[in-house]
Amino acid sequence: MKIAILGGTGNIGKGLALRWECKHEIIIGSREQSKAEQIADSYAQILRENTTKTCNIRGVKNDKAVAMADIVIVAVPYQALKSLVDSIQPSLTNQVIISLVVPMEKQNSYLKYVQPDDGSAAVKLKKLVPDTIGVVAAFHNLSAKKLCNLESHLDYDVAVCGSDKEAKKKVIKLIEDINGIRALDGGELEDAVVIESLTPFLINLARRNNLQELGVKFV
Amino acid sequence: MKIAILGGTGNIGKGLALRWECKHEIIIGSREQSKAEQIADSYAQILRENTTKTCNIRGVKNDKAVAMADIVIVAVPYQALKSLVDSIQPSLTNQVIISLVVPMEKQNSYLKYVQPDDGSAAVKLKKLVPDTIGVVAAFHNLSAKKLCNLESHLDYDVAVCGSDKEAKKKVIKLIEDINGIRALDGGELEDAVVIESLTPFLINLARRNNLQELGVKFV
Repeated sequence: MKIAILGGTGNIGKGLALRWECKHEIIIGSREQSKAEQIADSYAQILRENTTKTCNIRGVKNDKAVAMADIVIVAVPYQALKSLVDSIQPSLTNQVIISLVVPMEKQNSYLKYVQPDDGSAAVKLKKLVPDTIGVVAAFHNLSAKKLCNLESHLDYDVAVCGSDKEAKKKVIKLIEDINGIRALDGGELEDAVVIESLTPFLINLARRNNLQELGVKFV
Repeated sequence: MKIAILGGTGNIGKGLALRWECKHEIIIGSREQSKAEQIADSYAQILRENTTKTCNIRGVKNDKAVAMADIVIVAVPYQALKSLVDSIQPSLTNQVIISLVVPMEKQNSYLKYVQPDDGSAAVKLKKLVPDTIGVVAAFHNLSAKKLCNLESHLDYDVAVCGSDKEAKKKVIKLIEDINGIRALDGGELEDAVVIESLTPFLINLARRNNLQELGVKFV
């Protein structure tokens, strides 16, 4: 698969780029070509140090990345979502978008989920793109730090929410290519509000209890 | 501690009564004295078969149970919350209430969280009781079945949400008396919406993925 990764909220995009271990073609998107190339080079360097496999990873501008991709990972802050979608709109044909977007803001030194009028960022995103685009929500409840540290053994569950059955199936299969992550059907796209609101909750939970970045496991 | 357990949504009350392993005095509350006694007897029987410790467990009417207790576990369906609180109101002095209440309804064969106007069932409950009562939310994301099966080894995390620091500290300490459960500070009472809404999500997740009842672990 050709996977475009746009944005890198809390390094989660980097972690994903690395954790697919060259099983897929990774296209790093950025607003600027030079920045995209630079990021892709740095990821390629890490992969060269950790694997002998041939990795296909490159960096291009967001719209070009989307045009080349089967799967588009959107990992930008909620505030940047609308302008990002505007900029990639002409390249959207029949890709599947995975939303990692979480609308949240700081309040009294903790993070607070700010529920959009549409119900969730994922539903909002679905409304911004053509009907031919399958949208799912996933990867909200992982430790980005742990994901980026290739020496760290993963043991996470990822709930995938989406109402486009084919798109959801495709994404679940893709996630299962990452060692140490179990992908589960998390229900409809409107259920994404649960996994989105869990993101600031987990960040606060780690902080309040002096723990490392937290992800989730359903046991 | 003297712990009153009112109601038993999905057997979670039963599981808790058993899992404290006679470290605390358990008072089962019910609308009828005879039913409370009957339930308490059946739990006592299970405990006799599983431990040699002396267990203090009895059943009385809800209002009497609350009057005797330091800690009150409220595990009734959301629809029954108001009338339950009305019935125990005269017995409420300075107890700590743990809310397990989740407002949810069936929709297309799955469960859906129905957010109350107050933000969560826990906040609603706080508004219904005197100011002297500390209210926390906990125990939403556990498998009741696993809790009730004493041969099953537990490995869960329980996030405790509450804005009364002393009450929260007391409950966290109490939860740590249960083998296999780690209690974590889950933030303010208003944060309870996250753990409440996770309850139907977990039930649906198990159903959609053909898994046993699910609880949660933060890793």
